[in-house]
Amino acid sequence: MATDAQQACFEAGIKFGSLYHQFAGTPVSPSSARSLETAMAEAIENQPFCESVTVEIHDDRVMDAIDHENGYTELTGSLMDVEMRVRYEGVRIDTRMAMADGYPLMELVDVRDE
Amino acid sequence: MATDAQQACFEAGIKFGSLYHQFAGTPVSPSSARSLETAMAEAIENQPFCESVTVEIHDDRVMDAIDHENGYTELTGSLMDVEMRVRYEGVRIDTRMAMADGYPLMELVDVRDE
Amino acid sequence: MATDAQQACFEAGIKFGSLYHQFAGTPVSPSSARSLETAMAEAIENQPFCESVTVEIHDDRVMDAIDHENGYTELTGSLMDVEMRVRYEGVRIDTRMAMADGYPLMELVDVRDE
Amino acid sequence: MATDAQQACFEAGIKFGSLYHQFAGTPVSPSSARSLETAMAEAIENQPFCESVTVEIHDDRVMDAIDHENGYTELTGSLMDVEMRVRYEGVRIDTRMAMADGYPLMELVDVRDE
Repeated sequence: MATDAQQACFEAGIKFGSLYHQFAGTPVSPSSARSLETAMAEAIENQPFCESVTVEIHDDRVMDAIDHENGYTELTGSLMDVEMRVRYEGVRIDTRMAMADGYPLMELVDVRDE
Repeated sequence: MATDAQQACFEAGIKFGSLYHQFAGTPVSPSSARSLETAMAEAIENQPFCESVTVEIHDDRVMDAIDHENGYTELTGSLMDVEMRVRYEGVRIDTRMAMADGYPLMELVDVRDE
Repeated sequence: MATDAQQACFEAGIKFGSLYHQFAGTPVSPSSARSLETAMAEAIENQPFCESVTVEIHDDRVMDAIDHENGYTELTGSLMDVEMRVRYEGVRIDTRMAMADGYPLMELVDVRDE
Repeated sequence: MATDAQQACFEAGIKFGSLYHQFAGTPVSPSSARSLETAMAEAIENQPFCESVTVEIHDDRVMDAIDHENGYTELTGSLMDVEMRVRYEGVRIDTRMAMADGYPLMELVDVRDE
């Protein structure tokens, strides 16, 4: 009933919601940010139709968020950018999460028949 | 660039991924299943464009999964059915998660212009 | 090797870490806070040696944290107080999480042989 | 009111509950298991009093748990062993999680004044 493009967008959304709510709250500091980026990307790339994921945690934002006594903070959407490519049947979807007007926004960047 | 229907499907997917990965792993027993169903539904209904969520945790499956010594198990997709309605601009999406061939499947049930 | 009191404190810590990291990040608003409080308490009460859990989400703090456009925020330790009683062998432990100097602090309130 | 050793055991329990409930449910396969092990260890090592964490995800158990169609499974306690050292004031705690009688058991291995 849904078109391939609609199904592809549904699949892309599932991956974004999964990534966000699986890892939000993870303790993070600049020294652990690299391993968390890699683990997040590789974990979600396991999911069906997910071709590639890139996670960039911004160390400067992590530093700003850190309580100087604790030395770490908890991962939230405002600390990272995410790019993801999903492919379903002949449709390629590019999506990203980035800050917009002070809030993390998940968005469809490109929906393309190939 | 994306159509309203594609955007609606993306939003529906986000809610499903969120619900699943926020709550998977929660300790659950028949005596706590009702409050968890309600909390899951009301939490996700907070998200934008999410009109309604229904979560049904099957007590018989929970009982089957329980280690008799512990008295509880951890929530997984195989223990519950979820129905969700998302509305974005003029598009209404009905989605559900249910068991199919032994695995929980998230699927678009209906995509409708209203 | 560990004493009963030490084991009881270990068990109390497990419950606190579980509660925090299972539910941190959950979408929450004043209208969904009551069901989330109940679900959190009942979920953790399933765990062994956990006698009672009380979660209080502060609506005024939730309102302060809400982006007025979205209408909800994500659960963090700064929005709630938690009290928990654990009983292991003859030892009763009372613990709580509350704000201290601007940060949520998990602490042992009382360790008592009964 | 609590002794240093009791406080140390409480802190050790917090780390274990955090690790488990933050990462349970993460999509995992043999090809992503190494990055997840590293990210889990480094994330929890950020927490106060946590000296070292080692996570070993068993590829053979992951393979057994994988749905051959999907190519991945979700992380649970039965797929991994964890060792953790916590140091609080003069007390050193060694803890581990490993399978016992078919279930993952978190346990205090050693509580030592130094």
